[in-house]
Amino acid sequence: MKIAVYGYGNLGRGVECAVQKSPDMELIGIFTRRAPESIKPRSGVPVYKNDELVNFKDKIDVLILCGGSATDLPEMTPALAKDFNVLDSFDTHAAIPGHFARVDEAAASSGHIALISAGWDPGMFSINRLYASAILPNGKDYTFWGRGVSQGHSDAIRRIKGVVDARQYTVPVPEALDAVRSGSNPALTTRDKHTRECYVVAEEGADLVRIEREIKEMPNYFADYNTSVTFITMEELKRDHMGIPHGGAVITTGRTGWENENTHVIEYKLKLDSNPEFTSSVLVAFARAIDKMHKRGVTGCKTVFDVAPVDLSPLSPEELRAHML
Amino acid sequence: MKIAVYGYGNLGRGVECAVQKSPDMELIGIFTRRAPESIKPRSGVPVYKNDELVNFKDKIDVLILCGGSATDLPEMTPALAKDFNVLDSFDTHAAIPGHFARVDEAAASSGHIALISAGWDPGMFSINRLYASAILPNGKDYTFWGRGVSQGHSDAIRRIKGVVDARQYTVPVPEALDAVRSGSNPALTTRDKHTRECYVVAEEGADLVRIEREIKEMPNYFADYNTSVTFITMEELKRDHMGIPHGGAVITTGRTGWENENTHVIEYKLKLDSNPEFTSSVLVAFARAIDKMHKRGVTGCKTVFDVAPVDLSPLSPEELRAHML
Repeated sequence: MKIAVYGYGNLGRGVECAVQKSPDMELIGIFTRRAPESIKPRSGVPVYKNDELVNFKDKIDVLILCGGSATDLPEMTPALAKDFNVLDSFDTHAAIPGHFARVDEAAASSGHIALISAGWDPGMFSINRLYASAILPNGKDYTFWGRGVSQGHSDAIRRIKGVVDARQYTVPVPEALDAVRSGSNPALTTRDKHTRECYVVAEEGADLVRIEREIKEMPNYFADYNTSVTFITMEELKRDHMGIPHGGAVITTGRTGWENENTHVIEYKLKLDSNPEFTSSVLVAFARAIDKMHKRGVTGCKTVFDVAPVDLSPLSPEELRAHML
Repeated sequence: MKIAVYGYGNLGRGVECAVQKSPDMELIGIFTRRAPESIKPRSGVPVYKNDELVNFKDKIDVLILCGGSATDLPEMTPALAKDFNVLDSFDTHAAIPGHFARVDEAAASSGHIALISAGWDPGMFSINRLYASAILPNGKDYTFWGRGVSQGHSDAIRRIKGVVDARQYTVPVPEALDAVRSGSNPALTTRDKHTRECYVVAEEGADLVRIEREIKEMPNYFADYNTSVTFITMEELKRDHMGIPHGGAVITTGRTGWENENTHVIEYKLKLDSNPEFTSSVLVAFARAIDKMHKRGVTGCKTVFDVAPVDLSPLSPEELRAHML
């Protein structure tokens, strides 16, 4: 199975690494908008300028798009689905239906397959919301994120005057997790579910009181949360906050029985040392699946909901039934 | 979607109840080997003698088989797959490939669809082993069961001379769970992973020392475990041990990164007040899926691995993408 990567940030490097761990796959190239010679991939795989993709039309089974959801993927995925089987991690939940429609048109009309929004949320968390809701139709699901670094919130802090660098951790509230896991079906506000911890490096002489206030009052990002702000030095940031951990849990509780007397709790939990490397690993598994599906004649845009688990594995259906069922 | 149930024990009653919670389904009948008039279903659905099934060949979309794995299902599923779309919860892991082959032949040759081994293990736990192993190909998975009642182990105790009744709880060892969740990839023996708690009602005057020894030394069932035996009265058993709770966790840990420097922990956990009612709820969701698949022309034997999540839900693909992805 010949895989190529478009985009070589954290996600692209994660895909490069994950493909090495998949004996049925070969990474044939990295495509980039940057100058190819500026990139020295760890795997030694060739790097090409993105406009060279036209020469690879029949040489790539699946092209994994490692761009951002804000501006890259909305253009990139439909455009490239005309010539390749493509896979992305588009994660703007509200914009998924529109993105799906555009990608579906491009992929279906050209006989390709595309899969959008793979990763862990959207992705594995979505799959778990679906399974649990199908099993417990009267259930309620709760999604918690963290403890982990939110890139978007860290960026928002960096834009404040006087801030040199910052990391923001999203942290689930332990009491909320406990209440949900008890099956008591609590009503939880945004503030009840998560707190936000901010570690901020300020310019020398900056007004720390103003910076803290601007963070805590920032609408959408922080105003609806209990937020803590800790000022640290650049040395402390580099020593303690360079990782990109994340994770979270999807917890569904529901009842069965004639009087709804029996409570069930289904929980899917992730604890990830590296958010981008885990996302990349999910992308690579779904790349395998859409390659198999395309070889069976499936075309058009798909999501993680449309993929049978069997297609994600390098093992045969017989091996899976014998050893994993 | 017209559903029928074959067998009316705990599992059949659970299916009856789960179908009521599914607005797209109708339970059209319960079929039994017993005298139909001896059964008074809570839902008021008609009860038929099993040999009347021949009159329902085109009136049932999916027939859910609620028999036992030891002797019922090995005969029942292949035989009925000749005339119906069928679904079972066959749970003898080692015998799955043979069962699959027999059911596949019957279903494929008659143009029906069958799905075997639905439930939670095999079933949802299997699905989670597969997803996690596909995402983390160098990962290791651990399955823990409990705290919950094991019917097989309770039955084994009841066969000992002098025992009136008994309940056996399978309990995961907390230290083993902690070690696995830490990502340290521990090597765990059978004894390290689970303990077995036995609550036993003995005949008056029975030799309690002998009973305890016979339990603890019983090969396969107890000899490989740390087992505790507590003698209780019939009143205590009826007061404290009439539930059928169960659950457990599938935990997969694996590493990513060029030096395998990043550890990831994926955990799927169930806490179930009623083991049979949860299993029934899984069966009903997969009944929906195989009905959809059969209407698209799919035939032959399938397992939970072959079902795309989208087919389990009563919601449309558009609704799922908009609200659950």
